[in-house]
Amino acid sequence: MILRIAEIFGPTIQGEGALIGQPTVFIRTGGCDYRCSWCDSLHAVDSRYRHDWAVMDAQQIMAEVARLSGDQPLMVSISGGNPAIQDFSGVIALGRAQGYRFACETQGSVARDWFADLALLVLSPKPPSSGQETDWSAFDACLAAAKDAPRIMKIVIFDDHDLAWAREASTRYPDLALYLQPGNPETDPDLPVDPQSLADRMLWLVDATVGAGWLTPRILPQLHVLIWGNRRGV
Amino acid sequence: MILRIAEIFGPTIQGEGALIGQPTVFIRTGGCDYRCSWCDSLHAVDSRYRHDWAVMDAQQIMAEVARLSGDQPLMVSISGGNPAIQDFSGVIALGRAQGYRFACETQGSVARDWFADLALLVLSPKPPSSGQETDWSAFDACLAAAKDAPRIMKIVIFDDHDLAWAREASTRYPDLALYLQPGNPETDPDLPVDPQSLADRMLWLVDATVGAGWLTPRILPQLHVLIWGNRRGV
Ligand code: SF4
Ligand code: SF4
Repeated sequence: MILRIAEIFGPTIQGEGALIGQPTVFIRTGGCDYRCSWCDSLHAVDSRYRHDWAVMDAQQIMAEVARLSGDQPLMVSISGGNPAIQDFSGVIALGRAQGYRFACETQGSVARDWFADLALLVLSPKPPSSGQETDWSAFDACLAAAKDAPRIMKIVIFDDHDLAWAREASTRYPDLALYLQPGNPETDPDLPVDPQSLADRMLWLVDATVGAGWLTPRILPQLHVLIWGNRRGV
Repeated sequence: MILRIAEIFGPTIQGEGALIGQPTVFIRTGGCDYRCSWCDSLHAVDSRYRHDWAVMDAQQIMAEVARLSGDQPLMVSISGGNPAIQDFSGVIALGRAQGYRFACETQGSVARDWFADLALLVLSPKPPSSGQETDWSAFDACLAAAKDAPRIMKIVIFDDHDLAWAREASTRYPDLALYLQPGNPETDPDLPVDPQSLADRMLWLVDATVGAGWLTPRILPQLHVLIWGNRRGV
């Protein structure tokens, strides 16, 4: 089974969501069925960058993960792009046999049996500002495929419209732990990110949720953006 | 049972540790058996501020929590000072009956039966830079008192010496999930905090841990300091 891989990097800390702060190696897969207006991973999405993607099999991928981690089993995050458009069952089976655990982040448009083998499935449906439409029946199929695997929902919020949409999504899935993350409009890898503007966006989102009496979602920033800006591979 | 309370505030997000990002009401208790050199909560420690502390019983405390949360049950964090020098069993019993859940953060110098009723016990032993000594037998008694309650260890790191000490502590408790947090030398509530310096301290700590091949602890900043600086009550 041959897989298209945009980059494998780490270990570094997970910058967002339920595993925030956790040492992680990242497998960023190549290719996506979405085209979000604010995508911060176009190098892993746009087929313009296709010639930069590696073609690797499960053995090669896990060999690189083991090299990076010095053979210490840790959390491996499969992100993208949309990892679910490819078959990662072989990577996960091989890695788990070596003690690694896997998280996968996907928008929830394609369900895969291997979701059930994850230590965490992060479903991140895209709000209106992305310009994409969520197919909730596909999303439901993802939840069903995960079986007993831990799962959360993470939604990026750029504005009030996104926030109202997230609230509706949370009503639809009251038992799914929800994480909200302020959107990052500064995605140029060659430009620095102002930590103060990141802090300001967190303040806005905390005020708009907790401050407005919505007390269930957890609100987290992108730590990697705070620490490294939009630099890749950190 | 009368309790000394420095402040009750929120809901706001939990800024640090395992519950980072979670909407929380904070009960900051008055009084501490430690005097850490870099304590950021002297107003809840030093008896100089004693006349600012309220004297409240469990009913009064939970009435204030319910008022702040608009009667929505949420996570309540009991911090200090050292909450364990007082008896919070009554507050916790009353709050749990109303659907609230409780986390408590303490250095681990005093064990309490009510640790077993917590949704999370955060034990934060103080590294050498604090100028305090950890009594590990008291710490062990805290762990034992917590019984089956979830617990983590959180250590604030100012320098390499603290880091070596944390590593030794993690060897002593290999099964206790460890969170590391860069120390904040800027604790004056009247001075602004530079978000860039907070980002720099995170970068240093990630490099010194993950970058050096230590892949087990989770590394998290103090989000509330990023967002609000050292302002109180947020
Ligand atoms: S789903 Fe993710 S990777 Fe795909 S276009 Fe949207 S933001 Fe980019
Ligand atoms: S244990 Fe905590 S509250 Fe007490 S002096 Fe140290 S830092 Fe301050």
